[in-house]
Amino acid sequence: MSKKYVYLFKEGNADMRELLGGKGANLAEMTRLGMPVPQGFTVSTEACTRYYDDGKVISEDIQEQINAALAEIEEINGKKFGSPENALLVSVRSGARASMPGMMDTILNLGLNDEVVAGMIKGNPDPKFERFVYDSYRRFIQMFSDVVMEIPKKTFEVIIDEIKEAKGVKQDIELTSDDMKELVVRFKAYYKEQKGEDFPTDPKIQLMEAVKAVFRSWDNPRANVYRRMNDIPYSWGTAVNVQPMVFGNLNEKSGTGVAFTRDPATGEKALFGEYLINAQGEDVVAGIRTPSKIDQLAQDMPEVYEQFVKVAHTLEEHYKDMQDMEFTIENGKLYMLQTRNGKRTAAAALKIAVDLVKEGKITEEEAVLRVEPKQLDALLHPQFDTKALKAAKPIGKGLAASPGAACGKVVFTAEDAKAWAANGEKVVLARLETSPEDIEGMAAAQGILTVRGGMTSHAAVVARGMGTCCVSGCGEIKMNEEAKTFELGGMTIKEGDYISLNGSTGDIYGEAIPTTEAAIVGDFDVFMKWADAVRTLKVRTNADTPRDTAQAVKFGAEGIGLCRTEHMFFEGERIKAIREMIVSKTVEEREKALNKILPYQQGDFEEMYRVLEGRPMTVRFLDPPLHEFVPTKDEDIAELAKEMNIKVEDLKSVIEGLHEFNPMMGHRGCRLAVTYPEIAAMQTKAVINAAITVNKEHPEYNIVPEIMIPLVGEVKELKYVKDVVTSTADKIIADAGVELTYHVGTMIEIPRAALTADEIAKEAEFFSFGTNDLTQMTFGFSRDDAGKFLDAYYDKKIYEADPFAKLDQTGVGKLVKMAAELGRSTRPDLKLGICGEHGGDPSSVEFCHNVGLNYVSCSPFRVPIARLAAAQAAIKSKKN
Amino acid sequence: MSKKYVYLFKEGNADMRELLGGKGANLAEMTRLGMPVPQGFTVSTEACTRYYDDGKVISEDIQEQINAALAEIEEINGKKFGSPENALLVSVRSGARASMPGMMDTILNLGLNDEVVAGMIKGNPDPKFERFVYDSYRRFIQMFSDVVMEIPKKTFEVIIDEIKEAKGVKQDIELTSDDMKELVVRFKAYYKEQKGEDFPTDPKIQLMEAVKAVFRSWDNPRANVYRRMNDIPYSWGTAVNVQPMVFGNLNEKSGTGVAFTRDPATGEKALFGEYLINAQGEDVVAGIRTPSKIDQLAQDMPEVYEQFVKVAHTLEEHYKDMQDMEFTIENGKLYMLQTRNGKRTAAAALKIAVDLVKEGKITEEEAVLRVEPKQLDALLHPQFDTKALKAAKPIGKGLAASPGAACGKVVFTAEDAKAWAANGEKVVLARLETSPEDIEGMAAAQGILTVRGGMTSHAAVVARGMGTCCVSGCGEIKMNEEAKTFELGGMTIKEGDYISLNGSTGDIYGEAIPTTEAAIVGDFDVFMKWADAVRTLKVRTNADTPRDTAQAVKFGAEGIGLCRTEHMFFEGERIKAIREMIVSKTVEEREKALNKILPYQQGDFEEMYRVLEGRPMTVRFLDPPLHEFVPTKDEDIAELAKEMNIKVEDLKSVIEGLHEFNPMMGHRGCRLAVTYPEIAAMQTKAVINAAITVNKEHPEYNIVPEIMIPLVGEVKELKYVKDVVTSTADKIIADAGVELTYHVGTMIEIPRAALTADEIAKEAEFFSFGTNDLTQMTFGFSRDDAGKFLDAYYDKKIYEADPFAKLDQTGVGKLVKMAAELGRSTRPDLKLGICGEHGGDPSSVEFCHNVGLNYVSCSPFRVPIARLAAAQAAIKSKKN
Repeated sequence: MSKKYVYLFKEGNADMRELLGGKGANLAEMTRLGMPVPQGFTVSTEACTRYYDDGKVISEDIQEQINAALAEIEEINGKKFGSPENALLVSVRSGARASMPGMMDTILNLGLNDEVVAGMIKGNPDPKFERFVYDSYRRFIQMFSDVVMEIPKKTFEVIIDEIKEAKGVKQDIELTSDDMKELVVRFKAYYKEQKGEDFPTDPKIQLMEAVKAVFRSWDNPRANVYRRMNDIPYSWGTAVNVQPMVFGNLNEKSGTGVAFTRDPATGEKALFGEYLINAQGEDVVAGIRTPSKIDQLAQDMPEVYEQFVKVAHTLEEHYKDMQDMEFTIENGKLYMLQTRNGKRTAAAALKIAVDLVKEGKITEEEAVLRVEPKQLDALLHPQFDTKALKAAKPIGKGLAASPGAACGKVVFTAEDAKAWAANGEKVVLARLETSPEDIEGMAAAQGILTVRGGMTSHAAVVARGMGTCCVSGCGEIKMNEEAKTFELGGMTIKEGDYISLNGSTGDIYGEAIPTTEAAIVGDFDVFMKWADAVRTLKVRTNADTPRDTAQAVKFGAEGIGLCRTEHMFFEGERIKAIREMIVSKTVEEREKALNKILPYQQGDFEEMYRVLEGRPMTVRFLDPPLHEFVPTKDEDIAELAKEMNIKVEDLKSVIEGLHEFNPMMGHRGCRLAVTYPEIAAMQTKAVINAAITVNKEHPEYNIVPEIMIPLVGEVKELKYVKDVVTSTADKIIADAGVELTYHVGTMIEIPRAALTADEIAKEAEFFSFGTNDLTQMTFGFSRDDAGKFLDAYYDKKIYEADPFAKLDQTGVGKLVKMAAELGRSTRPDLKLGICGEHGGDPSSVEFCHNVGLNYVSCSPFRVPIARLAAAQAAIKSKKN
Repeated sequence: MSKKYVYLFKEGNADMRELLGGKGANLAEMTRLGMPVPQGFTVSTEACTRYYDDGKVISEDIQEQINAALAEIEEINGKKFGSPENALLVSVRSGARASMPGMMDTILNLGLNDEVVAGMIKGNPDPKFERFVYDSYRRFIQMFSDVVMEIPKKTFEVIIDEIKEAKGVKQDIELTSDDMKELVVRFKAYYKEQKGEDFPTDPKIQLMEAVKAVFRSWDNPRANVYRRMNDIPYSWGTAVNVQPMVFGNLNEKSGTGVAFTRDPATGEKALFGEYLINAQGEDVVAGIRTPSKIDQLAQDMPEVYEQFVKVAHTLEEHYKDMQDMEFTIENGKLYMLQTRNGKRTAAAALKIAVDLVKEGKITEEEAVLRVEPKQLDALLHPQFDTKALKAAKPIGKGLAASPGAACGKVVFTAEDAKAWAANGEKVVLARLETSPEDIEGMAAAQGILTVRGGMTSHAAVVARGMGTCCVSGCGEIKMNEEAKTFELGGMTIKEGDYISLNGSTGDIYGEAIPTTEAAIVGDFDVFMKWADAVRTLKVRTNADTPRDTAQAVKFGAEGIGLCRTEHMFFEGERIKAIREMIVSKTVEEREKALNKILPYQQGDFEEMYRVLEGRPMTVRFLDPPLHEFVPTKDEDIAELAKEMNIKVEDLKSVIEGLHEFNPMMGHRGCRLAVTYPEIAAMQTKAVINAAITVNKEHPEYNIVPEIMIPLVGEVKELKYVKDVVTSTADKIIADAGVELTYHVGTMIEIPRAALTADEIAKEAEFFSFGTNDLTQMTFGFSRDDAGKFLDAYYDKKIYEADPFAKLDQTGVGKLVKMAAELGRSTRPDLKLGICGEHGGDPSSVEFCHNVGLNYVSCSPFRVPIARLAAAQAAIKSKKN
């Protein structure tokens, strides 16, 4: 017997998410719970995978199963596909394992053809009904042509505009039943003109083509971008849900809406939502009409409202989480079309998780799992500078769709947003409304402003998911997208002008308002305490200044995992001394220059030790190639030569001598210390002296300096530099007559270091995985150059994630694991950490937990994310 | 009881080489054979290692053992250290496991002091003897001061010159006994002035200091360079041989010499050597006096000669190899001071190996092990162009010290040789005589010319070892090293002038004579047949042109392991088409340009298939980044823009767009094929069409094309490009209506490819290890940039070998092994090869054999080396 690819809703349940997709599984679950769900069926994700495996063909056996399921739902619903008397119309919707709102295609009203339309009208003489039927028909033709046949929707809009012009009307709603009828005729003619054949009339053919189109849409560019941004594997595929249509646009006793069991912006426990009378779902989601609040339903249709409140309550109790529900009312009767765990802001996520624990519905550990670590970003994002904000006056107000503050130059297309941002500009994207094609531009923008659409519009939902500030539905705006200007509050804002948005209030400003760092409030501390309680992986930070260090400590950093000492070299007098060192010709000259740097560096370390109050700090010795410290332009070289009182030619020849073909693989890291051990000696002095000084001030800190040698590939190399460090340090300690323990360790960032980690651990007291460089070397491409081809790699599904953002567990991870095991085989108590960008990426943090690292280290603003990710990893690994 | 560190000669034997060093083990063996060896002792290599481990100190227990051994040899020799009546004098010489001629230090005449000298003179009233004793004493002071106390030898020469001037004489030999006496006084005064203390008079202190000095000399710069060139590990250490002095400079019945049991230049079976009457060994080796042939000894001292011939014969029979012996005749009595397997030219090595088999002394497999693979280089080195040579007239003649032809600009110091060669110049190094300090300059030179010194002088021995052409001992030359000129045959040759040398005849030319490739002659074929018989590893070549291919086939290549297709892109019209492709903006434009390249590329492949006559060829698809094909200078860009009929700005912007920060890690290899699959399609057409064409001409060739995708790091990447290849190839094959098998494989040159080789083997039908890139990525440094720090790494013993020349078995080798195992776990019949530079390096070839690769591929001139190395690896692995 053939494998089962098609499931009636009544055959499934919520646990079958992988097979049925989120939507399908929840429709099945609602069916099991006895809720009013139009009974349909789900074509499984495995059918999608098979579709691709078979070369984009739906195999015979799957087609048979679809037709069989169709027959069953005809039976259940008492309607028949293609029957003029009693027509079954269906919606065909995608539904992946993970929610991908708006990313894939949907077709409504499928099953219509001339005979069915005629039959329907015959059965209901109401002229409004006739108009409704023709409206549905023309919508179906338009949607089917767009989604299935790739005739752009816009080209049909042109025909509508022609008719509107001919009739002298402005709104679709003003078109009559006859106008709609004519639209159908002209749409079909246009279709034939475009495709060279008649619009398909057989509903079964329509259905099969629609299913294929949904499968295809799994692979459309915006879905691919969304998946990459959200770590959703391409291999999962999407399910397809085929569900009998119910019509929210049938009459004034009909409507459609979206609601949440708690406020997705604040987490407040109250039914929250919007609906539109006499509308189809797409009208709400697309944000073309601004909908009413859900409370209005209590007055419009009290019984339906009561029933819906009960359903909502049951669903939240059942799923023990905030639900996001879609419903339709057809002629006074409620139908549930979807429920899912609702997307929410970070603040809401925290509040809901904490409230659910308080309500006794979930445990603290379950609560910890309820918040996406990446979401915390939103809490940590900039807010307006309070003073500047007081002085500013809003020019308008929209909906507070996604919290945070944004300030940037306004752009009017997603492409511009992307391009300007790529040039280092901070931009705010202003649009009439956003659509899924805009996703990359939205991601590149500081904030998003739309003229149309509510709190559940595309712009709002996507912005919240991204943690990007968004103000939506500001109808006052007069937008001229063509001219790239808009008018608001008497101002004309042109492309490139600064505007500012407050996503928490909806305020719009026609000026730049400086933003300040985020402030953590509310349930954050309670929640993070739960996370910390279960977490075993320590979280440190990458910080090079006392200010960053203080910030990170505030965010819960347990120390510094990576202090990049070279960042201290660029300011004022320091860079002069560094350059003096670079042009030195003898060890003595070099030492003289280094002696000038010593007090600065030591002072920085002292300050950081003070801020850390006893927390550990790993100091990485000089890493970048020396040419990074010298100018490249002729005029700058000339100026510097004058300043340094040396000949221009001499300086030029030094700089030319520093040139490297592949700086990433050049004279840097510990290679500098091997050739110029006096640099390592100076840095050792700075660290050890600083520790001794601050220990004297605060004996309770008991500072144990950690010195980290970068770019080691061979144990003898580490040994050589370590000998410089220990001989220098031991002398200082002896001379000072103090007791001071210190550790010398290494970065593991060169593949050879990972491969020979057992040898390296003989000298290294700790390892810190530098996964940025390790990724570069393991993949053999540099981060700076990979941009030229990585897009092609994403398009062609060769890579699904940026290996510099998300640790490549297969390749780089194998080296990390190998190094951890080899290292500990030599030195069982070897301390292991990670200090690459990956230290703040949740999936990478989970990997670090699983391979047994002791800590991760990440930038200050990612510390809370890492803390939460580490906690979730601990809970998940307990479960396994 | 303490470990034994000191062995009397009579306690050892030839098998104890690791412990006693080569010299010590052979002195022991000669003792066992009852030969006339002055009985001494050897301080073991383990004592040297311990000396370094203990922080450059000879521990008490080793000192005790040395003193005990000293007492024993006093007993045996009937002499006493420091005794005026009956003084024991000793030589102290280094002796490592592997012979390192001239690299370490020697001290002669140790044991002399004022009392001993007085006593010796008292015992022998001959005034010549008095002069001899004082001469020995001043030599000892000079040598001890130089070697042990680091007072340069030259500064003593100044004193000698002063005395010679005062006396009005020119030669040392003209100095009287009193002059020598005065020299001793002045030397000691100079010593005291330099060191602030008296010259040590206690022979035991002299001895211990001398032993230490020899240990120290293991770590001197020239020894380190020599070891790196000859793959000798630093960890081995050297032994020290302490042997009673015998005096070849005692009188006219004394002498000293060096001899070989066969001719080290030709391999001819005949006693071959040189000796000097009334001289010490250093006089022969240093090449200051030009010695007599050994045959002369038959006339000078027939009995001694006869005895020596017998000893020589016995030694060769015993060691079953050509021996290189040092002997001294003291007052008519023969003493053997050393024997070892003699260094020899490649031609001699082959002849001796083949002759020894013919003589029934060794087996064919033993013979195969007798020739150093690297030596074959010498047979493959350039010879003069015959025509040009006929037209040329030598300006002088020296000794044919090391065969081959050389042509280059003359330089007069080793430093210049090194510097000029680094700038790409071909140079010939001309010196009065060479010394061990010159070794790097000698290695950089095409040829070496010396004024002084015989066939066993430093220059000759070292040049033969290196396989570098050398003409030595051309006394006619008037050399002015200061002015950097020399006069010969009426010509004045200045620095930078071209000269040519024939190392096989000794001819010197004052002009450039073009050289042509080497011709293989004599015993080569017989020998290589034996090697091939035992070899299991195949040897292919890296070749990109029909000419190189033909050359490699002549050298025994069994196919092409790496055909770099981009090398075909640079000539004439091709580069134009490539550039046209690069500036193309659409796929169609690119395809148009590629279509122009197709016939060239296909034609090249056809020609190569014809030359290969059915041998396999692995074609690697386009690898380098595209910016390598475009000009960088403004004027060239302007010219090209004109030629291409495009705007300069447009071309500039294309070229700027191609810029990469780290080209080695940029848009290259299969990444080009992923972004521009049409390139891979074109190359596939060229390969497959060529194979079909040549198969039609020569069905017996049965060509099976091998297409290799470079720089793969992920199986999906390979799959993508492979799909392009197979769809293109299959269509061509079907259209042509032929049967054609072809294989698609990949380079393993990115660490991630090695780490995920099990996945990659699902798509790859063969792997070829690109160990150049793999080394770069594994070490994290680029070959082009590593020069800046590698010298420091060698100096500091962090690396002992250049990882780009000798495969790093610890790190890179681990990846190779892992990839081989993972790959074969997926595809047991996976064909594995290597095509990096390492494919021609003997130790790397051995590694490839041991990890089970199927073939190595190397440049044509290294093919014979690889064949021999592979044979030796097979024999060695059979033994284990």
